[in-house]
Amino acid sequence: MTFAAQILTLYPEMFPGPLGVSLAGRALSQGIWSCDPIQIRDFAADKHRTVDDTPAGGGAGMVLRCDVLAAAVDHASALRPESPVLAMTPRGTPITQQRIRELAAGPGLTILCGRFEGFDERLFEARPHIEQVSLTDIILSGGEMAALTILDACIRLLPGVMGAPSSGIEESFESGLLEYPHYTRPPEWEGRAIPEVLRSGDHAKIAAWRKQRAEDDTRLRRPDLWERHRGVRD
Amino acid sequence: MTFAAQILTLYPEMFPGPLGVSLAGRALSQGIWSCDPIQIRDFAADKHRTVDDTPAGGGAGMVLRCDVLAAAVDHASALRPESPVLAMTPRGTPITQQRIRELAAGPGLTILCGRFEGFDERLFEARPHIEQVSLTDIILSGGEMAALTILDACIRLLPGVMGAPSSGIEESFESGLLEYPHYTRPPEWEGRAIPEVLRSGDHAKIAAWRKQRAEDDTRLRRPDLWERHRGVRD
Repeated sequence: MTFAAQILTLYPEMFPGPLGVSLAGRALSQGIWSCDPIQIRDFAADKHRTVDDTPAGGGAGMVLRCDVLAAAVDHASALRPESPVLAMTPRGTPITQQRIRELAAGPGLTILCGRFEGFDERLFEARPHIEQVSLTDIILSGGEMAALTILDACIRLLPGVMGAPSSGIEESFESGLLEYPHYTRPPEWEGRAIPEVLRSGDHAKIAAWRKQRAEDDTRLRRPDLWERHRGVRD
Repeated sequence: MTFAAQILTLYPEMFPGPLGVSLAGRALSQGIWSCDPIQIRDFAADKHRTVDDTPAGGGAGMVLRCDVLAAAVDHASALRPESPVLAMTPRGTPITQQRIRELAAGPGLTILCGRFEGFDERLFEARPHIEQVSLTDIILSGGEMAALTILDACIRLLPGVMGAPSSGIEESFESGLLEYPHYTRPPEWEGRAIPEVLRSGDHAKIAAWRKQRAEDDTRLRRPDLWERHRGVRD
């Protein structure tokens, strides 16, 4: 079954963009996923195809109109009623790897990309099925890079996309910890050797070392993740 | 002065990609920023142009070789010695809007994109000027979407890119809070009116309402941000 991605955007030419090459690009041409950008401007009611207007109450920038955006979302939801609808906005719930897994296991997703100052809030009041999602706590020029990133995270989990089926499991965040550090050939480089234990052939010792490093590095680098991990475990 | 972006990647054809259109695309053609992808494979020493090898100690996937990656980074750093070097990795420090502001105020940046299981850790031990940065806590197929997202966040802050110079300041995260909700025309839609206060013309009242909504929404939606905001304030 094809994972169907619909992207509501003012810049449909951005898609599939970088997702048209490499693993995702191959998967796209194999029909593992599909990519349908939808131009929001096509749902404007006036001849100038206006999608935005000045903020009520004053202030800089422009706000995306709720009537135009709702018409675009309604169109996409009618085409794919089974797909969850995500709006990329810094006011949204931070995305998690768990949510990515759920999305990747589903029929696809519809992503609404904001621009300018953002959406008229009534859009979310009137269409409560729209999930407001934030990629990370930095400000982007629009939702398009966030949409590409979310799609990339989903696509790599689709059956047939990654080589080794185990690759998805052992990685960062899947266990609630950062991943342990990696090493490969050459065994020595610029006077730096691969840690002895990794060359020992002792699988139990290697597993213990990796677990310890994942815990140590998480505690040191990401106390926020470490606290959550301990909270879940206790 | 041109903001110079160098991207070390196995997929140089992904750049500028979506950053070649819209605001960022116009800024690129105006010379406000430049985009130089560098093929990591060009720094492989063998005729097969090998960049990766199996993980020391066993496990799934492939690891990027430190000798090849260091040669690529050394080349980029020689071209732009003044540019900070960021490696996109889930083991890195989470990016913040404050760091984006610092980067955008500088001469440019060099971004190293990982693929497969990640980098041989000795790269970071031997080249301590490489800043390990994480975009968000989800797993991507590589660093490329993260690099595009970081660049997008920087480019919009470059002088001459955004229309209104005030647009950068009042937004989400800049104050440590989520942004207040927006409204625009039509004044009534599907039975939903724009909040009365925003149509009052009373600027002090509007400012107070927006501050209250920013605080309320942050406390409700992002208790993590709210705690940090209170901590800074106290």
